[in-house]
Amino acid sequence: MDIKRKDLLSLSDLSVYEMDLVLQTAASFKQVSARDIKKVPTLRGKTVVNLFFEPSTRTRTSFELAAKRLSADVINFQTASSSMSKGETLLDTARTIEAMRADMIVVRHASSGAPHLLARSLKSAVINAGDGMHEHPSQGLLDLFTVWEKKGTLRGLKVLIVGDILHSRVAHSDIHGFQKYGCDLHLVGPPSMVPSGLLGTVHHRLETALPGADVVILLRLQRERQSTGFFTSLREYAKLYGLTAERLACAHKDVLVMHPGPINRGVELTSEVADGSASAILDQVSHGVAVRMAILYLLSGGTRRRDA
Amino acid sequence: MDIKRKDLLSLSDLSVYEMDLVLQTAASFKQVSARDIKKVPTLRGKTVVNLFFEPSTRTRTSFELAAKRLSADVINFQTASSSMSKGETLLDTARTIEAMRADMIVVRHASSGAPHLLARSLKSAVINAGDGMHEHPSQGLLDLFTVWEKKGTLRGLKVLIVGDILHSRVAHSDIHGFQKYGCDLHLVGPPSMVPSGLLGTVHHRLETALPGADVVILLRLQRERQSTGFFTSLREYAKLYGLTAERLACAHKDVLVMHPGPINRGVELTSEVADGSASAILDQVSHGVAVRMAILYLLSGGTRRRDA
Amino acid sequence: MDIKRKDLLSLSDLSVYEMDLVLQTAASFKQVSARDIKKVPTLRGKTVVNLFFEPSTRTRTSFELAAKRLSADVINFQTASSSMSKGETLLDTARTIEAMRADMIVVRHASSGAPHLLARSLKSAVINAGDGMHEHPSQGLLDLFTVWEKKGTLRGLKVLIVGDILHSRVAHSDIHGFQKYGCDLHLVGPPSMVPSGLLGTVHHRLETALPGADVVILLRLQRERQSTGFFTSLREYAKLYGLTAERLACAHKDVLVMHPGPINRGVELTSEVADGSASAILDQVSHGVAVRMAILYLLSGGTRRRDA
Repeated sequence: MDIKRKDLLSLSDLSVYEMDLVLQTAASFKQVSARDIKKVPTLRGKTVVNLFFEPSTRTRTSFELAAKRLSADVINFQTASSSMSKGETLLDTARTIEAMRADMIVVRHASSGAPHLLARSLKSAVINAGDGMHEHPSQGLLDLFTVWEKKGTLRGLKVLIVGDILHSRVAHSDIHGFQKYGCDLHLVGPPSMVPSGLLGTVHHRLETALPGADVVILLRLQRERQSTGFFTSLREYAKLYGLTAERLACAHKDVLVMHPGPINRGVELTSEVADGSASAILDQVSHGVAVRMAILYLLSGGTRRRDA
Repeated sequence: MDIKRKDLLSLSDLSVYEMDLVLQTAASFKQVSARDIKKVPTLRGKTVVNLFFEPSTRTRTSFELAAKRLSADVINFQTASSSMSKGETLLDTARTIEAMRADMIVVRHASSGAPHLLARSLKSAVINAGDGMHEHPSQGLLDLFTVWEKKGTLRGLKVLIVGDILHSRVAHSDIHGFQKYGCDLHLVGPPSMVPSGLLGTVHHRLETALPGADVVILLRLQRERQSTGFFTSLREYAKLYGLTAERLACAHKDVLVMHPGPINRGVELTSEVADGSASAILDQVSHGVAVRMAILYLLSGGTRRRDA
Repeated sequence: MDIKRKDLLSLSDLSVYEMDLVLQTAASFKQVSARDIKKVPTLRGKTVVNLFFEPSTRTRTSFELAAKRLSADVINFQTASSSMSKGETLLDTARTIEAMRADMIVVRHASSGAPHLLARSLKSAVINAGDGMHEHPSQGLLDLFTVWEKKGTLRGLKVLIVGDILHSRVAHSDIHGFQKYGCDLHLVGPPSMVPSGLLGTVHHRLETALPGADVVILLRLQRERQSTGFFTSLREYAKLYGLTAERLACAHKDVLVMHPGPINRGVELTSEVADGSASAILDQVSHGVAVRMAILYLLSGGTRRRDA
């Protein structure tokens, strides 16, 4: 049982079989991080390069830890110190990294499609760690993993995605993933932020969407969108779309509340909800490492049995 | 023989028994760094995160090397690239790191008490690597180690701390540490920089304090204090408090000169003193790695025998 | 068979015997990076510090990968976060690093001679990773390695170096290296950029130099030189010195085209040439890791047989 593709670029082109493989592999790697010695020799002598053209703490660190716990060597590239500031093209930078014999390149870039360009041109495996407003597939997979692990299944669940769906690569990956697993998807947000034509029922009021919800995924509100007119004020947004304990009471009693982080307390959700028993936000973080271990393992050609 | 506490936050709340344990453990780790192969498998599979909200070279590198020589995996967080710039709270950042299964978090922060906040909220061990003007306990311990190793004892030594004691977290940790070991403490500096009420005899002239001194700890002068009126000029400061060979001749003949670095040559001390035989400044740097290995080892629950 | 020197500072003071030793050792390390497990335990427990006072992606990463593939511990120092911004002298910074028991310090600095200063003062091995406009010896060695490996020999080859030779530390190392191996050296560029007195035949037109060339090394054009009058425009420079397929047809049929990177497509060379069959640019990058593994290995005292 293995994965046939060279790269992980999006959930839109992943099959349920492939996603299942990631989730099951992640389940066994989750055990590794719970051990006293959180390390397996699986990728010893492999080189993973984090090539980040946008600042990132969580995703970069999560991939770095995943690679280190698999015993790979990890190199971090930051945009500021990179040759890109000297005018080199993206592809030349990536080819240079490949020439140093990088087995896997984890790339984040402000342009949608940048990882696809690299994937087509390089022999190294390319992992999309967020490209523009397109996709963020490892986040999508860890969201799926979190729901699957907490609920035991994905099929038939009522899943809400709330917020700036238009600009969110997390939302786009989630929509593809949850839809393929047969979830009942609901997209909630102001009309300026929820495009039509996506796979899900559109709501502009949180109240109409919440009843019976099994999962509520809140998207981070990018404050800079206010200046470009996508919402009028944080206060107004919070009043309409902020998840409060009172609102959450309308959802299914075992509802999961999720957020890719970092959270804006008092905006997308109240502290009561963020720190409450329904919140799976920190589980998402933990699962991120396990899911990324699975991705690195499977793309490195993990057909042989894992020695974990 | 082990340490019972989860965190290292300050020397004010450490017992002599606990400090002894760190010093003795550091003595054996000092041998590791002197070997051809400077590495032991003690913390293999453990994750140490350096979470630095203030720039640092020495302390961050010293902890990074200490962790690597113990075979731990190390992740560096810098303030600039962190989610904190996206408005996340300190505690949410730290909880995220903990959720990635960090065993130990080494934190530096401009606010006094920030590490204490984290320590109360997290299961991970928290090590204070400098919090505001409060404490810098690993520096205090390496200062104690340096004197103990060079002098064979701490009890009864005449120890001077010279400079901006008011603003110095190093001074505050040193004062607690040397006082608990029964040293004869003398605090020297301009009236604006030496608060009353601390444990030690206050001097405003270096000459009156130096006779018979066994140890002179010079504090780094922060040049930015000049603009806020704490001293009038570098030249004036150097004239009054700069340690020269001539002045040093009044001290004990085996006096040790120490400084946490980086030094301002010609300000806190002359190059003749910095590079002279009394100077233990580079020994402090070497000992810093050994002491931090001891701290990481003991806080990770080192009750079993060290496999070094 | 081993190398007697403590440091690698320049090719001007390296013997052919020593360069041979690096090239032959690099040839065996090249095999390591081609393996499935790209790692040997050769430098386990050694500490390599990258001390970079100028931004760098390629060279820093190449050294970092080289060290990691030899199983050394690597610490990265960046200028921005360093104590240097607090006014510490270069030498004090380096002594601090040495006191932490760094076995090897890889230094890049804007001042010519900075690595020599460190080498004289420290017991640690010092490797010059580029000092001002002086030398960049590891780049020179990887250029030699690339030609030697592709051509089977160096002696008697016609080698062109094209561009801003005056300001290029790469050119200066290359000139020493290729000259010592008995190459027929030709230096090509505008009069403002090709000083007289160097070891090689000077040309101000590319056309007169190209016929029969075995190797053409293009130097990166620093765009900021335009404002200081060293060339009039990128367009003008490209017209006179840009390597096109048409021009390249005048060279030897097996000519190698090389460039230290990052390349300016359409300036120093056309994309057709950069991506064509004569281009050895990505081979240079691959060889960089192997050559730096050889340098680290030999300077660490590699008299015993390599356990690769």
